[in-house]
Amino acid sequence: MRQSQLFSKISKTPPREEISRNAKFLVQGRFIDKLMAGVYTYLPLGFKVLKKIEQIIREEMNAVGGQEIYMPALHPLENYIKTKRDKIDVLFHLKSASGKKLVLGQSHEEVIVPLVKKHIGSYKDLPLYLYQIQVKFRNELRAKSGILRSREFIMKDLYSFHKDEADFEKYYTAIQNAYRNIFRRVGIGEVTYLTFASGGTFSKYSHEFQTITPAGEDKIYLCEKCKIAINKELIEEAKYSCLQCKSKNLKEKKAIEVGNIFPLKTKFSDAFDLKYIDQSGQKKPIVMGCYGIGLGRVMGTVVEINSDQNGIIWPKTVTPYQAHLLLLDSHPKVKKEAEKTYDSLQKQGVQVLYDDRLESAGVKLKDADLIGIPIRLIISEKTKDKIELKFRNNEKLQLLSLNEILKTVTEYYQL
Amino acid sequence: MRQSQLFSKISKTPPREEISRNAKFLVQGRFIDKLMAGVYTYLPLGFKVLKKIEQIIREEMNAVGGQEIYMPALHPLENYIKTKRDKIDVLFHLKSASGKKLVLGQSHEEVIVPLVKKHIGSYKDLPLYLYQIQVKFRNELRAKSGILRSREFIMKDLYSFHKDEADFEKYYTAIQNAYRNIFRRVGIGEVTYLTFASGGTFSKYSHEFQTITPAGEDKIYLCEKCKIAINKELIEEAKYSCLQCKSKNLKEKKAIEVGNIFPLKTKFSDAFDLKYIDQSGQKKPIVMGCYGIGLGRVMGTVVEINSDQNGIIWPKTVTPYQAHLLLLDSHPKVKKEAEKTYDSLQKQGVQVLYDDRLESAGVKLKDADLIGIPIRLIISEKTKDKIELKFRNNEKLQLLSLNEILKTVTEYYQL
Repeated sequence: MRQSQLFSKISKTPPREEISRNAKFLVQGRFIDKLMAGVYTYLPLGFKVLKKIEQIIREEMNAVGGQEIYMPALHPLENYIKTKRDKIDVLFHLKSASGKKLVLGQSHEEVIVPLVKKHIGSYKDLPLYLYQIQVKFRNELRAKSGILRSREFIMKDLYSFHKDEADFEKYYTAIQNAYRNIFRRVGIGEVTYLTFASGGTFSKYSHEFQTITPAGEDKIYLCEKCKIAINKELIEEAKYSCLQCKSKNLKEKKAIEVGNIFPLKTKFSDAFDLKYIDQSGQKKPIVMGCYGIGLGRVMGTVVEINSDQNGIIWPKTVTPYQAHLLLLDSHPKVKKEAEKTYDSLQKQGVQVLYDDRLESAGVKLKDADLIGIPIRLIISEKTKDKIELKFRNNEKLQLLSLNEILKTVTEYYQL
Repeated sequence: MRQSQLFSKISKTPPREEISRNAKFLVQGRFIDKLMAGVYTYLPLGFKVLKKIEQIIREEMNAVGGQEIYMPALHPLENYIKTKRDKIDVLFHLKSASGKKLVLGQSHEEVIVPLVKKHIGSYKDLPLYLYQIQVKFRNELRAKSGILRSREFIMKDLYSFHKDEADFEKYYTAIQNAYRNIFRRVGIGEVTYLTFASGGTFSKYSHEFQTITPAGEDKIYLCEKCKIAINKELIEEAKYSCLQCKSKNLKEKKAIEVGNIFPLKTKFSDAFDLKYIDQSGQKKPIVMGCYGIGLGRVMGTVVEINSDQNGIIWPKTVTPYQAHLLLLDSHPKVKKEAEKTYDSLQKQGVQVLYDDRLESAGVKLKDADLIGIPIRLIISEKTKDKIELKFRNNEKLQLLSLNEILKTVTEYYQL
């Protein structure tokens, strides 16, 4: 992509109204644009990151047997009356033209349970794992921290259906591993911990995946030995000790909840009378679990974890482009070299952002640091017949031939 | 995918409440599920078709310079007051927790024009083509014909921004070709025609792409010589003659509108004062166009066009799976052959649905016709060491070896 044609132009100053680091960089670098509080547009750069995060999540959900579906956002209010969730305050309420009371989905238990009930009868149909990657709406009174907590956001939600608790427990462990894979692959695995949280009124615990960062809104207590944590809401009940090794040596940390997994027991199955016939012909309630990840929140957290004072440092798995080629000269001969390099990289299957703008070298270098593509390539009068390569997370400069550049880039990305 | 594990089970009878052919087949074959009138879930089979249609549209939009973004569904009502569209009856109205009046996007002019205004200043930033594939909401009083007209639906909408009418006209022609490519690639190109329609209050004409089928809600007048049509709403004004060759030899046809393209002139630019600075330093209004395709409607239309009395006949470009392997015997030796064939096909990169269910041969054959995967493969005691191959749109049966099957399937799909 030629940066001169990329929508939109990088801002020279960070947005005043954004407080969090991720929002500052993402808005200034034109990954996202704020329409109103808690409601954002993903611009071309941000959309590419979002799609890469989505694909990683999709692969890991498919690997644990998830079947992908797509449920609507418009829900009948009557389903929420059945689950006694019609009064929860984050619901957006609206009415159809024919007068039917509707809400916007803030989660999809009220749709998926009746759906599964229509189609499931026997123990032979279980277990079943269904997921979607879809928009959710929450009417938050205060939306803040950019895309970390928004009113409209894209979420992956998986729902699992089991014949009994034992079968559920097995899957609950499998999903934990899938989540670890996701957070590792997007570049926040090192600082993301399985965290015990409240299970609500019907389950002792649920679990969160919490990423440690000063930008976090949550407080967790980390056992560095066991690599697990306890959410603040549970710490008194746990008597300030690790739930695994019982050690009292816990570190208080700020963290962002990037995912959560929840044993639902038969709460929603009971509400809709979702049962199955077991091998002996008896009707039994279906045990459920649900598993969420907010894609925008993951993206914001990746930026909090992978950035410095100059901007973002994208992990190679989710970077919007793989190489950022900067032309720092307007001389026709130098420009010709840059065009040739751009073509050669693209022919090798490298995703290249080519800064062909009529901007000063200073602006281009500053913007490259802000956007944070892992590999920066510079062509100027000074580089002569070579190309300067620099990794975003390293100060070392290398002057290489085009062939060496192609080799380095394709090896780095395993193309 | 093993069909025994596929969510959900194919229904033995068509749904009583659906009238249109596409809805009957798509609901019975479990591609979609109705949550309420005009609101559907895409089940695993339907989701796969949707994603293939999406990818074709994406490729064609990228080919005409479109940059993909993702705008929110929650819009501030105040933007609709500016464009005088706040009273249109298909808008869903709602309120934020802080009391702000919101609507759900039924289209995105009111969001994209202010967005572009923030980021565009000079003639050098033009032309600009932005698109998204995103959910839209329309509060229709009557929703019918399955996914052809729904209250919530996924749409591709592209918006183009130009310095003058001449530049717009050039792009309008390019988009027409891109749309022809899309409809050809999804398998309805032969019966889809560019159709002149009303341009609203501010443009003489807009254009629709109309697919001729008895299931259509629209009426068009087709000039078979020029391969263009006129929508009924314009036919009197056109004096019942072709707008190109002036012939009066027009055929009245029922049709489904699968896409539309619309010259917006400066209607929305004026509402938000969207201007650019030209080469002489003068402020000028930006000329716009918008271009829509509903993905669900395309899917429904593909089924109307590509089906017979027994079910769907998917075009190979959008089929949920590429081969449907049917095991018609429970003998262990036969089953082993089927498993081997399933593995071999998958290793060749073929997307296979493997009917390993404990159902009768009759049920399996009937379901295969309903689901409509282009290639059916049968393994039974009768086929011995061979496999029976049949195309869904052809009665001819072929007994082939596994190697011949692999060759036929990979050649058919150009894998």
